[in-house]
Amino acid sequence: MSEFSTDFQADLLRLMQRRRDVRRFRTDPVDEAILRDCLATFSFAPSVGLSEPWRVVRVQSAPARAAALANFTAANARALDGYDGEKARLYSVLKLSGMREAPVQLAVFCDEATAKGAGLGAQTMPETRRYSVVGAIAQFWLAARARGLGLGWVSILDPARLCQDLDIAKDWSLVAYLCIGWPVTESDTPELELAGWERRRQDVPVETR
Amino acid sequence: MSEFSTDFQADLLRLMQRRRDVRRFRTDPVDEAILRDCLATFSFAPSVGLSEPWRVVRVQSAPARAAALANFTAANARALDGYDGEKARLYSVLKLSGMREAPVQLAVFCDEATAKGAGLGAQTMPETRRYSVVGAIAQFWLAARARGLGLGWVSILDPARLCQDLDIAKDWSLVAYLCIGWPVTESDTPELELAGWERRRQDVPVETR
Repeated sequence: MSEFSTDFQADLLRLMQRRRDVRRFRTDPVDEAILRDCLATFSFAPSVGLSEPWRVVRVQSAPARAAALANFTAANARALDGYDGEKARLYSVLKLSGMREAPVQLAVFCDEATAKGAGLGAQTMPETRRYSVVGAIAQFWLAARARGLGLGWVSILDPARLCQDLDIAKDWSLVAYLCIGWPVTESDTPELELAGWERRRQDVPVETR
Repeated sequence: MSEFSTDFQADLLRLMQRRRDVRRFRTDPVDEAILRDCLATFSFAPSVGLSEPWRVVRVQSAPARAAALANFTAANARALDGYDGEKARLYSVLKLSGMREAPVQLAVFCDEATAKGAGLGAQTMPETRRYSVVGAIAQFWLAARARGLGLGWVSILDPARLCQDLDIAKDWSLVAYLCIGWPVTESDTPELELAGWERRRQDVPVETR
């Protein structure tokens, strides 16, 4: 029925189970060829109306990295203020980004004004342009993990401030800030579960109409 | 460096290249066990703060299917009104959903009010909850494709109307309407490219800061 073997299907499931949001990176560099191979998967991602609205900005220079890290640090401090008691204590000791260590850091944007695709499919749900970018990131993430790379998605950021600090085109909206590198450890269990913040549910909620 | 072989990495790339947005389905049923195996991949998707905000609604009954199809038909007619000349002629002959044929149809929502994860990571970018749902769909899509199934994501819908017609919980927002079944044909080329609507770009746009 499928051109892909049951062994491949099992390995694909295993890859998904092994994919983690990584925040603890080794500092040794990532070979550019490996990064390029992973980035190439963006081209095969689905996109609404074939709009391919993904725009990748590599955050490389010391000033750009410092601005992004300061942004995270401030947003994380504000987030901590929103918790009380035990939850606040636990939050304060969580490691929520690998921005100090990760050798590769990518800010990924959606070009909200792209003419590509002529708006097909995005009239009633324009957010599907951003969803297209997310789908591309999901594929990139799996491709990276298959090569042993770790990826951490940082969302504790003020997007407007990051766009200003990185001098981003006005029609681009931030979708994700990705830290990439070789992980310190491997695990099948999410770090937030190991830390006692939250547990995965055992089922997928499905209703019927 | 990786526990996954280079053969697997190549097959994963091939899977991404073969994944299509499918709108032409055979009408024979999908085995429930296959569907269940694919849905199980939701549990391994990344989610902001481990919030797992995905909620799946299987659109099965004749009235629910009719409401969804009428919703698409009206939104698609309005979208056609936005094009002129050759683009309008081309749009009018595109097949943009498999809702009349697809044996399995799933509306996938994000529970915006979930307490799971205690809001971690979603304070400055609450849209990351919806992005978590998109990431889960991306994994489900690849798992389905690996089994030979086709999936088509319909975004030409009025989400508020669909939520009303399907009696959806008020805190759930529509992320995607998915048509699933056995595809009539296989291709490496997007249907919108075959139809002459748009072409894929050959590169991934990367800037550096």
